[in-house]
Amino acid sequence: MPKTAKIPKAAITRLSIYYRQLECLESKGCQMVSSEKLAGLCHVNSAQVRKDLGYFGEFGIRGVGYDVVNLLAQLKNCLALNRNWNIGLVGVGRLGAALLHYQNVSVRGFRCVAAFDNNPALIGKIIPHNLVIRDIKDLCRVVQELNIEIGVITTPPEVAQGVAELFLKAGVNAILNFSPARIRVPDSCLVENIDFTVKLDILTYKISHGIGL
Amino acid sequence: MPKTAKIPKAAITRLSIYYRQLECLESKGCQMVSSEKLAGLCHVNSAQVRKDLGYFGEFGIRGVGYDVVNLLAQLKNCLALNRNWNIGLVGVGRLGAALLHYQNVSVRGFRCVAAFDNNPALIGKIIPHNLVIRDIKDLCRVVQELNIEIGVITTPPEVAQGVAELFLKAGVNAILNFSPARIRVPDSCLVENIDFTVKLDILTYKISHGIGL
Repeated sequence: MPKTAKIPKAAITRLSIYYRQLECLESKGCQMVSSEKLAGLCHVNSAQVRKDLGYFGEFGIRGVGYDVVNLLAQLKNCLALNRNWNIGLVGVGRLGAALLHYQNVSVRGFRCVAAFDNNPALIGKIIPHNLVIRDIKDLCRVVQELNIEIGVITTPPEVAQGVAELFLKAGVNAILNFSPARIRVPDSCLVENIDFTVKLDILTYKISHGIGL
Repeated sequence: MPKTAKIPKAAITRLSIYYRQLECLESKGCQMVSSEKLAGLCHVNSAQVRKDLGYFGEFGIRGVGYDVVNLLAQLKNCLALNRNWNIGLVGVGRLGAALLHYQNVSVRGFRCVAAFDNNPALIGKIIPHNLVIRDIKDLCRVVQELNIEIGVITTPPEVAQGVAELFLKAGVNAILNFSPARIRVPDSCLVENIDFTVKLDILTYKISHGIGL
């Protein structure tokens, strides 16, 4: 798998989206897919599909397309979805609770194995998938016991930085931050932010500038 | 405001993030901010800040920085946050309910003025902010009555496309899609997708390729 370190982030995002559509195609018994068809399903153009898949190897047969099962396996390997990833979530408010109920995650090899809060009224409560809400004070120990590699932050913004530092101290170097606060971490830690108010801003920017209308 | 239509999406995302940090600075009584300081708060480099702000005009004073109140006002105008935006949400499951509780939205001029579901057990229930869950069948009428401009989809993936088509039929041309399904809409409709499993894929890709470690 050459050149993978140079794949731009936007391409990785698309690989993840291709992967999902290929899963759908496979579940429908589809064996081959053209770059045009895959592009149509993912709302990109077919040249983009061919370029993206070209980043990490050539899988298509000219005039025939891609073998769905083979391409899925290669993408799974590339995206490191061929193993389980243990997740720890901090902040079992409404958003945290909604995410803990989310079905799609466990299907794809991501397992939330621990949930933490600092609210005494929540600690000890049993939540879906038989998880017990743990005391945030136990985060470091639990991360090591359960081999947690990804931390999810669903706390109010004012405590997000402190939680990120706890994760770092515990050895978690990949964080998915749902709080609207930007968190400061060393370069050795990966952070992805999910802030839907930014998406709303993009929509209003485009509406007001007549983009797409 | 010249050239705005050409601003790349990544820059708009950053403008939204600058805006948030400037709001924090303003609330702390800070009057001037250098591009270096703003860059540090937003985790980008200062040349990026200057370039992004340069897309839509020059506001900084060399060696002094930017006037916080003035820059906020300009960004607010650019991002079209100087007015209210009415939002309609479809799918009052756990995620939908969590979003309806979210405080940060109403603060920024986004108001969820209607929530819809197709579940008879939910229709008619009163939810936070005195909203009544409405029957999805009434979507078209309610969109027009309440002047809804942005549609939010928090349904299961298998019905997301149908909901998008209802929004389109009702004249809503901007959709924020939280379902993992990709939705197909004409080019005249704006769609932003929020799918955190894609973010997880990006993290696992980077972890497994040693990026950032």
